[in-house]
Amino acid sequence: MENGSTLRKRWGFRSNPELNMATDNTVRSVLFMLLSKLNNSDTRPVIPLGHGDPSAFPCFRTTQIAEDAIVHSIRSATFNGYVPPVGILPARRAVAEYLSQDLPYALSPDDVFLTLGCTQAIQTVVTVLSIPKANILLPKPGFPYYEAIAKSCHLEVRHFDLLPHKDWEVDLDSVNALADENTVAMVIINPGNPCGNVFTHQHLQKVAETAKNLGILVISDEVYDHIAFGKNPFVPMAVFASTVPVITLGSISKRWIVPGWRLGWLVINDRNGILKEHGIIDCITAYLNISSDAPTFIQGAVPDILSKTKVDFFSKIVNIIKEAANICYEGIQDVPGIICPSKPEGSMFVMVKLDLSVFEDIEDDVDFCVKLAKEESVIILPGNCVGLNNWLRVTFAIEHSALEEGINRLKAFCARHAKKP
Amino acid sequence: MENGSTLRKRWGFRSNPELNMATDNTVRSVLFMLLSKLNNSDTRPVIPLGHGDPSAFPCFRTTQIAEDAIVHSIRSATFNGYVPPVGILPARRAVAEYLSQDLPYALSPDDVFLTLGCTQAIQTVVTVLSIPKANILLPKPGFPYYEAIAKSCHLEVRHFDLLPHKDWEVDLDSVNALADENTVAMVIINPGNPCGNVFTHQHLQKVAETAKNLGILVISDEVYDHIAFGKNPFVPMAVFASTVPVITLGSISKRWIVPGWRLGWLVINDRNGILKEHGIIDCITAYLNISSDAPTFIQGAVPDILSKTKVDFFSKIVNIIKEAANICYEGIQDVPGIICPSKPEGSMFVMVKLDLSVFEDIEDDVDFCVKLAKEESVIILPGNCVGLNNWLRVTFAIEHSALEEGINRLKAFCARHAKKP
Ligand SMILES: Cc1ncc(COP(=O)(O)O)c(C=O)c1O
Ligand SMILES: Cc1ncc(COP(=O)(O)O)c(C=O)c1O
Repeated sequence: MENGSTLRKRWGFRSNPELNMATDNTVRSVLFMLLSKLNNSDTRPVIPLGHGDPSAFPCFRTTQIAEDAIVHSIRSATFNGYVPPVGILPARRAVAEYLSQDLPYALSPDDVFLTLGCTQAIQTVVTVLSIPKANILLPKPGFPYYEAIAKSCHLEVRHFDLLPHKDWEVDLDSVNALADENTVAMVIINPGNPCGNVFTHQHLQKVAETAKNLGILVISDEVYDHIAFGKNPFVPMAVFASTVPVITLGSISKRWIVPGWRLGWLVINDRNGILKEHGIIDCITAYLNISSDAPTFIQGAVPDILSKTKVDFFSKIVNIIKEAANICYEGIQDVPGIICPSKPEGSMFVMVKLDLSVFEDIEDDVDFCVKLAKEESVIILPGNCVGLNNWLRVTFAIEHSALEEGINRLKAFCARHAKKP
Repeated sequence: MENGSTLRKRWGFRSNPELNMATDNTVRSVLFMLLSKLNNSDTRPVIPLGHGDPSAFPCFRTTQIAEDAIVHSIRSATFNGYVPPVGILPARRAVAEYLSQDLPYALSPDDVFLTLGCTQAIQTVVTVLSIPKANILLPKPGFPYYEAIAKSCHLEVRHFDLLPHKDWEVDLDSVNALADENTVAMVIINPGNPCGNVFTHQHLQKVAETAKNLGILVISDEVYDHIAFGKNPFVPMAVFASTVPVITLGSISKRWIVPGWRLGWLVINDRNGILKEHGIIDCITAYLNISSDAPTFIQGAVPDILSKTKVDFFSKIVNIIKEAANICYEGIQDVPGIICPSKPEGSMFVMVKLDLSVFEDIEDDVDFCVKLAKEESVIILPGNCVGLNNWLRVTFAIEHSALEEGINRLKAFCARHAKKP
């Protein structure tokens, strides 16, 4: 085989360095790095407090109604072919009806675009809005996939703060300060990842008014819709769609505990037709035209999944998560060096702060998580990945006994690394 | 509601005109346009000779083994979660074993990346190769999705010819003339879309040598693998992977007649490790990291689908398509104004040339197809969409009786529009 330098001259292709850079700080890539640090000689099970996917635990198995819907769809042999890039009509209609239950108006199937999970919905809206010079406002802490896609589209990102001591509400002053004439949109995630908060109706109204005054659209990531178990009920941003255009992103990944099924949506909530008038809807259609679609037989199962799932299933899941949030919050109270400013009330996560002065030999959040993986086989996401250095994002949505075990190991780890008196 | 011009000033977002431009000539968008021309008062069934998806016809129903594999996977409840962006190991291994059957060496699972159909495999390889100033060589006629993705990535496209009177072989002189130091790759589609040809072993060897001399990689789109029924057997380009690096793209869409299942692959065939050395493999992984994945339970079904499907199923399907190709070719011989330079021997398509001088009132291929849709409810793709003006791409992979009916309507249409003597 020839050596590197000869090859580099002989062959005309090179890798695309921008892509490598855009993708090196996603949740996926950071968790992958942490998994590589596990000590294989530790015989205890790995405790996954890193990602929002409890599907492997039997208590989180999805409803049989959803499985039946897929089986029925595949056995019908009518959903094997290509479909329109926006999705098949019965599935779009089912999503419109499902979301309209929480709205003061009825969505039309035309407002709904089916996507490959909420992930492709994010990719679509960010790509569509990426025009030269534009910028987008993202929450800090947030979900790093937004940053990765914006980087890959050359869309400038500006970060507004979420306020830990105000239940992680949006710092609307920082939104106003950041926005300029090239700002196209702001993103909120509600219920919150990574903060586990649920915005009040009142706060969402202020967000809508702020965005309206700035002339920007609101992208509301509601992938954790209805996973709310504290004082605030879940309110969809679309309630304010006559104040400001809202694009809602969602999926069945979290509420049905089937993130691997990859079925999501992008929904236009815009009572004044502003997005249509500005060509945004045509542009979404154009982008979906060159994107991959959700498999047809999964689309075929959507009406049954969305309309037949029993309330009992949802409340069972939310109760397990609520109880897990309590176990996590209470457990963390006793851990030296870890501070939780706000009790989680939704989604599957809580943000906690590291007090590094307590520890003897922990450099920062990444160092903490790497050592924790190595020594305790517990995976936790460093806050750095979601925008807050020296914080941690802890997922509590796992089986309770595993969660308790994870918190015990976390305690032991912190005690072991604490400064000696 | 406020009027347009006020709105345009008030709101900061605008649509992305590049996206609209990149996507307006895909097969999907052109067929959609033609469907909108259908005359609703025509009570005859629409004859779809426009796209490569025969799944709606009962004789093309997929094997029950594939349906069972999906059902088994979903019922196992072990494939509901997130997975690594490159795909799950058993599925990657199954693809490696499936493709290795036709190769003089064994692929490793690490060589295989699972994608959402061949479509996402195309998107991935084109995006990864898009660096500033680079260009890619595409066949003319070809598959316009390549052009759409290249445009959306700002990758320059240059077209080499396929030669109708040489069984649509690659014009290697034009490849040599087009390539320069910024050329990164050339694409071949084998068996051919839109030409219905199958390249010989000898010709593929010349392609490999040409690419090697130019220092470019060969992207071989083999989505129609094994759909070959003429004098030339299907030979995978990867047979020449020690001459030149080859990236093979494929899917289960065509051979299993399940294009709606969206399961495909991108496979590295590179006996000298050149792509790895140039960082292309890391870059593919990085891109998949920000892309949507094939649903996990479909990945879970891949080992059974690929290893258990009976040869009988494949030969039944290929025989139906072969017979259809004959019906189409023979039928077209009598149609005034339509010339077929090369009998189809693979895939699902044939390219035929319009002799416009025969017609009284047909302007060009698009006009022909629009009028045909309106008057005869027959959908055929204008050659313009695949790069050859005043040609047509005819899909013959439909039920035989429907095909015969379509050709009869085509004959009637051409006779009606012929110049009167
Ligand atoms: C805030 C947020 N948005 C989007 C997603 C992606 O959702 P999906 O799995 O439906 O693609 C996630 C997944 O964790 C998420 O946390
Ligand atoms: C040449 C070619 N490549 C790729 C594709 C896309 O294949 P898939 O449906 O597996 O995404 C097609 C579909 O018609 C095709 O004809």
